[in-house]
Amino acid sequence: MATDAEIAAMRRALELAARGRRTRNPQVGALLLSPSGETLAEGWHHGAGTAHAEVDALSHLGSAAGATAIVTLEPCNHTGRTGPCAEALIAAGVARVVYALPDPGTKEGGGAERLRAAGIDVEAGVLGDEARAFLDPWLTARELDRPHVTVKWAQSLDGRAAAADGTSQWITGPVARADVHRRRAEADAIVVGTGTVVADDPALTARDSETSALFQAQPVPVVIGTRAVPPSARIHAHPRTPIVHATHDLAAVLDDLFDRGLYRVFVEGGPTLASAFLASGFADEVLTYIAPTLIGGPRAALTDIGVTTISEQRRFTITSVDTLGDDLLLVARPASGAPSPSATEGEMS
Amino acid sequence: MATDAEIAAMRRALELAARGRRTRNPQVGALLLSPSGETLAEGWHHGAGTAHAEVDALSHLGSAAGATAIVTLEPCNHTGRTGPCAEALIAAGVARVVYALPDPGTKEGGGAERLRAAGIDVEAGVLGDEARAFLDPWLTARELDRPHVTVKWAQSLDGRAAAADGTSQWITGPVARADVHRRRAEADAIVVGTGTVVADDPALTARDSETSALFQAQPVPVVIGTRAVPPSARIHAHPRTPIVHATHDLAAVLDDLFDRGLYRVFVEGGPTLASAFLASGFADEVLTYIAPTLIGGPRAALTDIGVTTISEQRRFTITSVDTLGDDLLLVARPASGAPSPSATEGEMS
Repeated sequence: MATDAEIAAMRRALELAARGRRTRNPQVGALLLSPSGETLAEGWHHGAGTAHAEVDALSHLGSAAGATAIVTLEPCNHTGRTGPCAEALIAAGVARVVYALPDPGTKEGGGAERLRAAGIDVEAGVLGDEARAFLDPWLTARELDRPHVTVKWAQSLDGRAAAADGTSQWITGPVARADVHRRRAEADAIVVGTGTVVADDPALTARDSETSALFQAQPVPVVIGTRAVPPSARIHAHPRTPIVHATHDLAAVLDDLFDRGLYRVFVEGGPTLASAFLASGFADEVLTYIAPTLIGGPRAALTDIGVTTISEQRRFTITSVDTLGDDLLLVARPASGAPSPSATEGEMS
Repeated sequence: MATDAEIAAMRRALELAARGRRTRNPQVGALLLSPSGETLAEGWHHGAGTAHAEVDALSHLGSAAGATAIVTLEPCNHTGRTGPCAEALIAAGVARVVYALPDPGTKEGGGAERLRAAGIDVEAGVLGDEARAFLDPWLTARELDRPHVTVKWAQSLDGRAAAADGTSQWITGPVARADVHRRRAEADAIVVGTGTVVADDPALTARDSETSALFQAQPVPVVIGTRAVPPSARIHAHPRTPIVHATHDLAAVLDDLFDRGLYRVFVEGGPTLASAFLASGFADEVLTYIAPTLIGGPRAALTDIGVTTISEQRRFTITSVDTLGDDLLLVARPASGAPSPSATEGEMS
């Protein structure tokens, strides 16, 4: 059983983890506690090639003999550009290790086993859900060997992204739009189709939606499709150089983004591209901004996602419903293989 | 200022009001309180032609001298099939009258003025919002001279009511379907298009969705449209005789339902009929059951509602968001004449 002090320390470790840069490596935080529960040192992983969080924390101490290490991810048992953290903790004389998430890597895993073999008391799973939510994109990327994909769209209550004549300014309100910019800044890449570039000429920057001031973190703009991107397109003024993939092969695009270390991909549309990601099963998270407005007509926010009969519908689990001004944001994840409810009579009966 | 005892009594009066039958008359509840706040008598309006709530409460007492009357609707000042309640309260010696909602009728109104002229202390607006929500359909009918219309549909997150091949069993889950049956039982009429009758052959009863046992209250089934209703259609087995209107003139249909005293109309579809009600501006309330599923394709829950450009979109205010099993229910009402936000850039930018 983790003590209250250890749980509080894990919460703090998750805050520290978020300070690290998002790179190919997971963002990890660590604390060293005295046997009485006082914080001796804090550390976090600053990015690939630098010390892991545990070693960063240890570096602040002369000795960690008898201390408890609190780490958001299982200490690694692997020598990469840095040595295995499990060995560093053993060498430092740590008496107990508490971690949130097991390391999913086959190379890196086994740290807990190594620690136990050295006589160290090990406890896993403390604030595991919080740590999993925080590291979800990285875990997805690690498990699937491709980036974590969030597909986002804004729609009317009845699922339209524009009126019949193509106008769409505005469906959602300023609070929802500000939320989109905040989430863009958390992504590594922001993906649109060439059709959207031609039709809407979006800037694709992450910015303060009132002052237009750019946020410090900017996703790399990625354009997919076979239509020509005009040289005057605003994405060419983006602080990050755009990546243009003249293809409809989404798997190949994701492979390329993965190879570039872009693990958090935010797909913003338009409807054809969003639908293609959904049809391909590449949506790990769906963000639907719903405005309390009805539009009707032909311009649906999603087009064809490959569902021809109701048993093929794509089931999701809603993980949150938030009110953003007059609008709602529904966050959903693919339901884990749950079959559709059995059919006994029509939807209306 | 209403006292705590008076506010509690008004809450009780609203419960009593709900006991009354839903007829052309509003459902009203009343209590008589002693000067020290004890309940002396309760009453409610049992239906057209019977005593109004205040008179019903007074009928239980020898004398109400010095009492406070708590009434959910302003006492009437009108002699219809029963005498004016304001006069009855004056004659009974009531010292104070507290009510929730003003009577919107031109004939019936003026009760508060009459009471004040007789030296009675009058307080209005106590739990006014709750009373307005409770009487909303009746108030709408009274104000617009037509029934209150609720348009309901179930859809996927992306606004579809069926897969491409027309199958739709099931999109929403059992909790949402049970909620629909409960709301059907609260309606006076349930309206569908002939296309839906032909395609889905719904029973249109209000029933326990597990046992199929019919609820006591059953809405009158109403079918609108020009396609022939098969003699074998299940609606012919409905406990209430169906009304069939072979027309597309919704105003004429609503006139007829109003004349029949059917003030609470529940429109269940299909998409064409629901869209026609919305296009005509006849939707006082919209219920959208949203299942966490994506379908895409051609079968939208709403078709054309007469919006060609974004400034014409129909803005609503979401009044509640409820989780029903895996699904959501969004209840919305037309926004009160608010113009669309001004356009400055595209929806995605």
